[in-house]
Amino acid sequence: MFKSLLATSLICLALTGASAQTQVEQWGIFEVALTGPTNGNPFLDTSFFVRFWQSNDARQVTGFYDGDGIYRARFMPERQGAWNYSTVSSAPELNGKTGTFMVTNPPPQDHGPVRVANTYHFAYADGTPYKELGTTCYVWAYQREEVQAQTLQTLATAPFNKVRMCVFPTHNDTNEPPLFPFEGKPATNWDFARFNPKFFQHFEQRILALQKLGIEADVILFHPYDAGHWGFDRMPPYVDDRYARYLVARLSAYRNVWWSLANEWDFVKAKQESDFVRIGELVAYEDPYHHLLSIHNGMKLFNYALPWITHASIQNGQAVENPASAEMYRDVYGKPVVYDEVKYEGNLSRRWGNLSAEELVYRFWNGTVAGTYVGHGETYASTNKTSTNSVVAWTRGGVLRGQSPARLAFLKQVLDDAPPEGIEPLDKWQNPEYGGQPGKYYLIYLGKSQPSSWTFLLPSPPMGDGVALEDGMTFKAEVLDTWNMTISPVPGEFVLKRKDAYFFTDRDGRAINLPAKPYLAIRIKRVKYY
Amino acid sequence: MFKSLLATSLICLALTGASAQTQVEQWGIFEVALTGPTNGNPFLDTSFFVRFWQSNDARQVTGFYDGDGIYRARFMPERQGAWNYSTVSSAPELNGKTGTFMVTNPPPQDHGPVRVANTYHFAYADGTPYKELGTTCYVWAYQREEVQAQTLQTLATAPFNKVRMCVFPTHNDTNEPPLFPFEGKPATNWDFARFNPKFFQHFEQRILALQKLGIEADVILFHPYDAGHWGFDRMPPYVDDRYARYLVARLSAYRNVWWSLANEWDFVKAKQESDFVRIGELVAYEDPYHHLLSIHNGMKLFNYALPWITHASIQNGQAVENPASAEMYRDVYGKPVVYDEVKYEGNLSRRWGNLSAEELVYRFWNGTVAGTYVGHGETYASTNKTSTNSVVAWTRGGVLRGQSPARLAFLKQVLDDAPPEGIEPLDKWQNPEYGGQPGKYYLIYLGKSQPSSWTFLLPSPPMGDGVALEDGMTFKAEVLDTWNMTISPVPGEFVLKRKDAYFFTDRDGRAINLPAKPYLAIRIKRVKYY
Repeated sequence: MFKSLLATSLICLALTGASAQTQVEQWGIFEVALTGPTNGNPFLDTSFFVRFWQSNDARQVTGFYDGDGIYRARFMPERQGAWNYSTVSSAPELNGKTGTFMVTNPPPQDHGPVRVANTYHFAYADGTPYKELGTTCYVWAYQREEVQAQTLQTLATAPFNKVRMCVFPTHNDTNEPPLFPFEGKPATNWDFARFNPKFFQHFEQRILALQKLGIEADVILFHPYDAGHWGFDRMPPYVDDRYARYLVARLSAYRNVWWSLANEWDFVKAKQESDFVRIGELVAYEDPYHHLLSIHNGMKLFNYALPWITHASIQNGQAVENPASAEMYRDVYGKPVVYDEVKYEGNLSRRWGNLSAEELVYRFWNGTVAGTYVGHGETYASTNKTSTNSVVAWTRGGVLRGQSPARLAFLKQVLDDAPPEGIEPLDKWQNPEYGGQPGKYYLIYLGKSQPSSWTFLLPSPPMGDGVALEDGMTFKAEVLDTWNMTISPVPGEFVLKRKDAYFFTDRDGRAINLPAKPYLAIRIKRVKYY
Repeated sequence: MFKSLLATSLICLALTGASAQTQVEQWGIFEVALTGPTNGNPFLDTSFFVRFWQSNDARQVTGFYDGDGIYRARFMPERQGAWNYSTVSSAPELNGKTGTFMVTNPPPQDHGPVRVANTYHFAYADGTPYKELGTTCYVWAYQREEVQAQTLQTLATAPFNKVRMCVFPTHNDTNEPPLFPFEGKPATNWDFARFNPKFFQHFEQRILALQKLGIEADVILFHPYDAGHWGFDRMPPYVDDRYARYLVARLSAYRNVWWSLANEWDFVKAKQESDFVRIGELVAYEDPYHHLLSIHNGMKLFNYALPWITHASIQNGQAVENPASAEMYRDVYGKPVVYDEVKYEGNLSRRWGNLSAEELVYRFWNGTVAGTYVGHGETYASTNKTSTNSVVAWTRGGVLRGQSPARLAFLKQVLDDAPPEGIEPLDKWQNPEYGGQPGKYYLIYLGKSQPSSWTFLLPSPPMGDGVALEDGMTFKAEVLDTWNMTISPVPGEFVLKRKDAYFFTDRDGRAINLPAKPYLAIRIKRVKYY
């Protein structure tokens, strides 16, 4: 596991109150920490910016007050080599400090932040494909320390490479937490003008812990599950903005951060769509690295066409009930589509929380061959009332009890083996079960049908996209049992022969024998490419 | 049938060369026709505008040259009472002419232009609901006179209230036409600086003929089916713009005009998306009445979120294979969704042209309960080589041979009986077969399932939309056989009792007996409302 230099250096800086770093790895964090004024309200009264530059690249980073007289500014260098910095502040002791440092090769586990790649897909900044496979642990950071440790232990062996997590506590899944984002007392006596640095220090550690596991943190800024209990869902707009700025200042240098403006934004009663547009524009502007940024819907889709939204983060269980539907939002937005909630594997009476594992895995595969990404969540009510998590376990973290994660690990293997440019729907309106890259790689998901054979048939893109198929091209095939997690190679090779305007078949008309079970997939690879 | 005064007055004006009208019906056409210069190029050299006003309403209308020295400006008054006008022109004989006229009550058949109503639906300007049910006769205006007459005869008894029709001819479905929109000779010798008034005079008559039948004309400005034969798909941008302006000047006073910027816009190889944005903005700006305006896709959706696009005119056959998918674009655009092409009833080998009538009607019903609108088209290859239409009959017009129009007439009756505000999906992600208006009217489409009974069950909107259901409310039910076109009332009344968080059932647990056939629907109306 990747042990970062970062945590150590952060501690050093906090103790010394001055920057001692002279080098940092690419996409690591270079931090300028200085001792400054403690009188008045340092969160509001003192401005602190640091400008970083090298040759033709310059970034201005907003600093933040971290309590105990310490001001910090964090920088994630995206290029190697020598960098310079210079501070600007309304406080003389924070102003005009300069320095230089070297940005070195990243360690093998550090691929940089995740970006949009090939329109509908993702890749790390160094070009390594990122095949998104997320889960939801909304309030794991609010649980007791041993539950948080258990969550990390679970995630270390789970297939997930993204976790959706809330900054604010949720009323139904959280006991009164020991730490809150603001100073003051619940619920009516918050000092919204003062953040609680201890809360954010802890939250940052959670993000860093995920980073060490190779997991992206999809940080959720707002949600409706406060329902007025603490009032974080109904703060004045200027407090929302200040909170968003402070969060971006603190977190944006963590390479594994994504921004999710809200969970179920339209259920946040005290906010309008225009409020989230304002906050979203603010985050997009303030974040010097342009981390992935989206917002998650309840019943009403957000306008994901807005230019600052990098991908669609959608709740819609029915959309992944077949690949044809799953694909539709790709056509609309021309951006990656992530179905972050498609209902959960569990046993709750509410209909969003009682999918079978089979059904959830089925939805993942439908989304996959449609060129989209699907999210996991688990909602088994605990049978043990004295356990650390009495209800809706995985929202809080802890252990996973479902049957889907093992199958999603299998899917993850398939995704990691798939073309780096991503899986595209190949015949979206006619044969949506075909995903892949034309002429190279095909993944055909047979869903709930239970065929005993499958006639070899490849779609010839009617619009001329991709590598054109030709008579004589050779392919190899495998049968994937997506539930039982087996891969069975089909003997021999398939040689193409045009069938009609829409399809090529094997020149000998070969079919593939199948075990007449549901949840099968066929994987076909061009011999030349693989 | 409505015999307009209009056609007569148009002829008078053309003969006298001066406006003699003193009154016009609301949403009719008041025309100012004047004799002006014939030297040079009247299409380009002479500007001609007419300003119309009454109290607090004023519109500027662009005139056009109609050949033979006649300049016309057409105005569709949207308010009754006295109106004034005054002309402005670069030619002295067309400048400074003034007059007044009265706008009278419209006749019963004249409800004005169709507008968007209730976000996802349509209504005429006078508030009368317009339940869209369109068909495609792309090049009927290019056929021989007797075929055109036959087409109108067919439409007079068909259920359709909208026809999609192209201005430009299509290469595969049109013999060399007697009239073209431009002066000059096919294909390389067009005079793009001179329109052919005779072509447009004829085209207008076709629009007026549809108007008399109560049919909207969805006028398609561009399409890819020229394929360079005449070159209308690859004119220079300034010619495209001039053509769009001329078309708007001539046609926008016809109340039954809709603008469709293109059919299968993304297949028009010589144009980019930005070209259609430019042309669309131009049409939206030039049209004083803001007729419905959209653009139809091939494989790539247009950005229907653009503010000047009034509704989404979508090709996507698979979207209406189930109501859940059909609904998805509503969520995205917040505008009416019209599936103008969902494949055609016919027997062609191409897969877009061989739906069974059952399948096409099935798609209409899926779209209907999802709160969207679906379009018809027919593509039976003629078996009679000497017939007026050798292939793809209905694209050219003539007669309809399919089995779907009768069933669509039945659907039209159901739509006309439905709530005027339109059918909304009532449980979009869970039970998409439920359309209607909560607490008042339910239309439940059972599709291809063949149930022998249906347990009375009404969804209780989880988000609190609409009229809340309560125990004790009473409803009556009918069984609709959408294929055999029968409506069978169910004896007695159903009295609500809450079942669980999501549903109300009948207090006696009653079910409705069904004939175990496909394509059934249940219609449920609240006793209080109907």
